[in-house]
Amino acid sequence: MLYKLFHPKSVAIIGASQKALSIGNVITKNLLKYQFKGPIYPINPKADEILGVKAFPSLMEVPGDIDLVHISIPAKFTPDAIDECGQKGVKFVIINSAGFKEIGKEGEAIEQEVVARAKKHGIRVFGPNCQGIINSDPEYKAYCDFTFTYPEPGHVSIVAQSGGVGAIYMQCIHDLGIGMRFYASNGNACDISIPEILRYYGEDEKTRVIILYAEGFANPGEFMDAAKEVAAKKPILGMRAGRTEEGAKAAVSHTGGLAGVGLSTELIFKKTGILTFRDVEEMCQAAMAFATQPVPKGNRVGLITDTGGPAIIATDELVDNGLKIAPLSDKGKGILREKLYPEAAINNPVDVLATAMAPHYRAALDVLMDEENIDSVYITFVTPPFVDTESVAKEMAEVSKQKRKPIVCNYITDKPQWTGTTAILKEGGIPCYDFPEKAAKVLAAMTDYNKIRSRKLGKPVKFKDVDASKTASILQKAKETGREILPAADVYDLLNAYGIPVAGWKIAHNADEAQKAAAEIGFPVVIKADSEKIVHKSDVGGVVLNLINGEAVKVTVETMQKKFGEQGLRFFIQKYLPAGTEVIVGAIEEKGLGHMIMFGLGGVLVELFKDVSFEITPITQFEAEEMLTSIKSSALLSGFRGKAGVNRAKLIEIIQRVSQFVMENPRIKEMDLNPIIAYEDKVYVVDARIKI
Amino acid sequence: MLYKLFHPKSVAIIGASQKALSIGNVITKNLLKYQFKGPIYPINPKADEILGVKAFPSLMEVPGDIDLVHISIPAKFTPDAIDECGQKGVKFVIINSAGFKEIGKEGEAIEQEVVARAKKHGIRVFGPNCQGIINSDPEYKAYCDFTFTYPEPGHVSIVAQSGGVGAIYMQCIHDLGIGMRFYASNGNACDISIPEILRYYGEDEKTRVIILYAEGFANPGEFMDAAKEVAAKKPILGMRAGRTEEGAKAAVSHTGGLAGVGLSTELIFKKTGILTFRDVEEMCQAAMAFATQPVPKGNRVGLITDTGGPAIIATDELVDNGLKIAPLSDKGKGILREKLYPEAAINNPVDVLATAMAPHYRAALDVLMDEENIDSVYITFVTPPFVDTESVAKEMAEVSKQKRKPIVCNYITDKPQWTGTTAILKEGGIPCYDFPEKAAKVLAAMTDYNKIRSRKLGKPVKFKDVDASKTASILQKAKETGREILPAADVYDLLNAYGIPVAGWKIAHNADEAQKAAAEIGFPVVIKADSEKIVHKSDVGGVVLNLINGEAVKVTVETMQKKFGEQGLRFFIQKYLPAGTEVIVGAIEEKGLGHMIMFGLGGVLVELFKDVSFEITPITQFEAEEMLTSIKSSALLSGFRGKAGVNRAKLIEIIQRVSQFVMENPRIKEMDLNPIIAYEDKVYVVDARIKI
Repeated sequence: MLYKLFHPKSVAIIGASQKALSIGNVITKNLLKYQFKGPIYPINPKADEILGVKAFPSLMEVPGDIDLVHISIPAKFTPDAIDECGQKGVKFVIINSAGFKEIGKEGEAIEQEVVARAKKHGIRVFGPNCQGIINSDPEYKAYCDFTFTYPEPGHVSIVAQSGGVGAIYMQCIHDLGIGMRFYASNGNACDISIPEILRYYGEDEKTRVIILYAEGFANPGEFMDAAKEVAAKKPILGMRAGRTEEGAKAAVSHTGGLAGVGLSTELIFKKTGILTFRDVEEMCQAAMAFATQPVPKGNRVGLITDTGGPAIIATDELVDNGLKIAPLSDKGKGILREKLYPEAAINNPVDVLATAMAPHYRAALDVLMDEENIDSVYITFVTPPFVDTESVAKEMAEVSKQKRKPIVCNYITDKPQWTGTTAILKEGGIPCYDFPEKAAKVLAAMTDYNKIRSRKLGKPVKFKDVDASKTASILQKAKETGREILPAADVYDLLNAYGIPVAGWKIAHNADEAQKAAAEIGFPVVIKADSEKIVHKSDVGGVVLNLINGEAVKVTVETMQKKFGEQGLRFFIQKYLPAGTEVIVGAIEEKGLGHMIMFGLGGVLVELFKDVSFEITPITQFEAEEMLTSIKSSALLSGFRGKAGVNRAKLIEIIQRVSQFVMENPRIKEMDLNPIIAYEDKVYVVDARIKI
Repeated sequence: MLYKLFHPKSVAIIGASQKALSIGNVITKNLLKYQFKGPIYPINPKADEILGVKAFPSLMEVPGDIDLVHISIPAKFTPDAIDECGQKGVKFVIINSAGFKEIGKEGEAIEQEVVARAKKHGIRVFGPNCQGIINSDPEYKAYCDFTFTYPEPGHVSIVAQSGGVGAIYMQCIHDLGIGMRFYASNGNACDISIPEILRYYGEDEKTRVIILYAEGFANPGEFMDAAKEVAAKKPILGMRAGRTEEGAKAAVSHTGGLAGVGLSTELIFKKTGILTFRDVEEMCQAAMAFATQPVPKGNRVGLITDTGGPAIIATDELVDNGLKIAPLSDKGKGILREKLYPEAAINNPVDVLATAMAPHYRAALDVLMDEENIDSVYITFVTPPFVDTESVAKEMAEVSKQKRKPIVCNYITDKPQWTGTTAILKEGGIPCYDFPEKAAKVLAAMTDYNKIRSRKLGKPVKFKDVDASKTASILQKAKETGREILPAADVYDLLNAYGIPVAGWKIAHNADEAQKAAAEIGFPVVIKADSEKIVHKSDVGGVVLNLINGEAVKVTVETMQKKFGEQGLRFFIQKYLPAGTEVIVGAIEEKGLGHMIMFGLGGVLVELFKDVSFEITPITQFEAEEMLTSIKSSALLSGFRGKAGVNRAKLIEIIQRVSQFVMENPRIKEMDLNPIIAYEDKVYVVDARIKI
């Protein structure tokens, strides 16, 4: 669908100008400078030529067909320009001009007008308020953009909502000395969307890795579908800004984008298989490795170094990022002992020594490639001025080309002097980084990607034992009575309907009923005042625990009646459970996305350490299990220092049932099962809250 | 003392060779290439000249004085070379050769011989197994080193134990386009030490900031003295590797288990005022800012940007690092409203818009410099090709030169094209970074440095109410009986002697005594079996809690006697305290350094979350307070969600008393006060363990 946008055979610029510091001029200059392969048509009624290129007073005067038109004239003139494009039979338009949705209502009206007219003409619009696209293909060399980096052809494609961040990516890829395939920064995205661009990159054979930057999604569902589809074919490296409250605020004030979606964006990335980054440079550096190296099959690294310190720093960073410094086999050590210097260290890291020559490096590389317990290779290569480093680099390049296991290299040198060595490493596809931490982080990212790629998410279970009609009637009733917070009895009935285990309970209206209910449930019991008016029940004496007989129940009910008034007050009588491990499961609606489910351990771990995990619905068995293991206090669930573990399977099932419940009942805004008390055998919800 | 080492007027190279890939050749080449200002004397009995420089068969044949001699001949010949230097009256020697301490006993013997002979001749030795030194001063241009980076003169001085890491620093400083003053990498450091080099850098007026890399300290005390002295004069940026390395401390207590290798180095850095880094690149990038910008007076940042995304990323990173995006005053906003484009965002971040010109930037800069609530300024500067960026840069440079508040800049451009703009920013001393995260981290580091610089550590309190003679006699007795783990009674007597509050206790030998003791202490009580043979008392039934009367005490004592045998078994009877907040204070010996003190909250927070803080003795009031506030669960000490807080002053005092106790009794190897139960008013040690 977007082929012609990225492969235009001719480009016109409405608003091309002789003024050096104008966007129309810069775009024309860029097309010329990057040596665009087709005709360029500057459109300007007052000029004969722009930068030496013949200008035309209007699109209609242009002799040939036009594949792509830039519009960089004031916003208010753009709808008429769209009509002109329609008359000329143009199919793609990039609107660089600002002054649309981002400035408020007036601009939004113009933007809508542009979209409407474009639709009528069958024109696809890229932008407005955007940079544009670049295709580095030597047969096109289409620099339809006003930025300043002129990339070499390559295999990394970039799509960035923010032009500023896009510019950093493009420049970084360029500075790393690797090539770029496509670039796209679509600003307000009134028509052509990021999901559409992603899909197009997914189909493009020469794109091996995709860099994605987003600040929010107009349609998260559409994005997820596209991302899932493309991520299954090739690595997508994703980043989003606004993860802190202040950052999100800055995002709103500067781009008018969607706010407060920081967490859910990272969850979307995770669920769809996008590798998430929180650092621009790390992401570009990882792209470099993905473009040339295979993906590691596991987390066991073998290191080769010719110096001490940097390898120690690398080890710290690798271990911090979850990688393992695997021991070498006796066979491997034997070969190293024979082929390296006698003083060399034949452990992992293998220290070949600063004076090592090409055959030493080759021996070490071959051993690590052969080792069954090694999944990837990390090299520290300081170029000693007393070593023939080009020969060393040739061995590295040769081994790299075998593509048996991924190699990354912390290459420490002065590049303007070591040009020969640098060129050999580059030709061999070895990703080289100036700093040990960077090379280590790249290897960690590749290892993470392997984990994502090889995980078996599975399909969500659909529990058949749920009582849908009962659920519907409870929710309908609540809607009719206008309640937002459901009464306790309704909450527990809903949980029952979805097979979520609840500690035994009954409703009572007075002391007599309460005593009878308590006797049936069995002592000890808890009594909670049940009234919509009482919000923080515990804080005002509306909850009394551990009542051991009928007399205590009676006194409690009467005290509450005095305190809160008898009018409409009911009592929720529930089994008082012995101490166990308290956990929390929550759900919260996310606009356009369904719900986000939270899991954590109760008490101070949630409140002070924020030790919780989240997932987006629908949640599969795999994901629910991961929610349990990914919290820091996960060890407590398996038993810790003498304390018994809990029934994890039951908790995993509750998470899945909650997922199904909120998906089948999208009216649910929030839901809290807090606490759930978990024991070695059983698990009970003890308190719950549902908001619709 | 080291002046001549760094300012040699003549250099000889013993081992200079015509072989291109030899160290002696490379050093001679480097001296020539860097244009050393004095005479170079290659020493080689078989060559007339090396690289066109007249060679001499021995030092004695050299006509003039020699300030500095490189030795790069096999290790076994080095002692005689030292004698030759002595005869020639040389005062400084750099031994580049390897084959000393690092290869084992044989090499160590040679190293000792070198040190002994050097001492006899009054020669100071740098190395062996090292790179050397560099002085970029145009009057010296002394490149006495075999590395490959040729730095411009500047104000950053580097000292690195590892040559590999040193090479990365030097190259990074060079690539950042800033200058270097001195470089030193001293390898085995048999004589001239890092503390000595630090002190020398401290005295050097042209050194504005010091980069330090260490892997360990031969003499931590000496290092601390030097670092404290120098850090008071100028910023020292420090890093050390090996933070994840396993084991080394085979201690049974929590403190030993949690401390880990490398922790004490970071504590040394902190205590002496060194700014600690964990990333090589971040450290060099920070050095760049320290070399030209003032230190911020607080953590409130004002941002100026001409694009959205990068400023959002910067905001995230700044906030993550503890900085505040301060609101602007109405006055400031008023000026911005008047002077910027109407669509500009006049919040913080100030978005001047991509089309902003020099006067817009100047207005924004002046406002932020005038704002009372802003301590530092962060600029995102994408160079739009339609803006006169040189004029913009001139305004930035002008404001930077006022040195009112520090400025850092995320400068996004293609530098080979934007040379004019880049040069103006550099000349203005504005530290420019390619990525928003990097600029933000640098500003965070500068802000941290201000905090370190302005803290009032104070002096350690000396409690006078301690009973030193009782302490000495208990420890002496323990030594005589050969006990490593002190008996409970001794432990509590020691705590008493140092004024550390202990829950009431008594020793009993049988049920009768136990009953009497319990009655005197007051019920309820705890009984602990007291025998050296029983290590994990709780696990084997050696601790029984909450005994409410004499009968229960009797039964417990008799049961324990049956279980553990009556022989030598004593009973420790202690007041059973109601539930409170459990905390831990521990101490562990650190060789050459005194002790490390640990503080944390008891239970799962220590064991699972490792939420503890450490300090090195002596601990001041300020540091003890910081230990309480720097744990993540610190809020629990102040009271949290209805739970009362604890008496912080008493805990702070206990930490200081423990510090004094272990300092005055260096025989203490480990000490654990676990738990200490803290209440709103009082604090009691309930269990304790001391190992000598």
